[in-house]
Amino acid sequence: MNFIDIIGLFAGICVTASVIPQIVKVWRTKKVKQISLLTFGILTFGIAIWVVYGILKKDFPIIITNSISLFLNLIMVYFLIYYEKEE
Amino acid sequence: MNFIDIIGLFAGICVTASVIPQIVKVWRTKKVKQISLLTFGILTFGIAIWVVYGILKKDFPIIITNSISLFLNLIMVYFLIYYEKEE
Repeated sequence: MNFIDIIGLFAGICVTASVIPQIVKVWRTKKVKQISLLTFGILTFGIAIWVVYGILKKDFPIIITNSISLFLNLIMVYFLIYYEKEE
Repeated sequence: MNFIDIIGLFAGICVTASVIPQIVKVWRTKKVKQISLLTFGILTFGIAIWVVYGILKKDFPIIITNSISLFLNLIMVYFLIYYEKEE
């Protein structure tokens, strides 16, 4: 793994992990009205397509990072739908 | 451009465009309390690193898609900081 690979890995970790504070915030406050379900819906759909792309290209870094992102964003979408009803 | 490239491009367009409904929602409502600044901060930082990665690899699709994402997410971060003060 060279220097450029490490930069790519670091970028991927940041983007993948970025949704976690939002998940924690929604989990704590149970409030979601200001958050766009459409944004997280399109994002999750796009990430799912990235996983398909990774599988078709047999590109394991793409499959793995996007699978983790997909899992996290599916939690987010679930929260948005679940807490929207609660409010 | 083959079929797999088109799938990758489609995934990239979805992920890049996904933040737009959230920007529009914040623009309309001026309310941001429930949205995590940390999430959009880390995301924007990660996308900036992707642009650096693209430049180092001379990979133009990565540079272009992530530059558009960076621009959109900088608007989002600006809104989050600006409207947080207003509330």
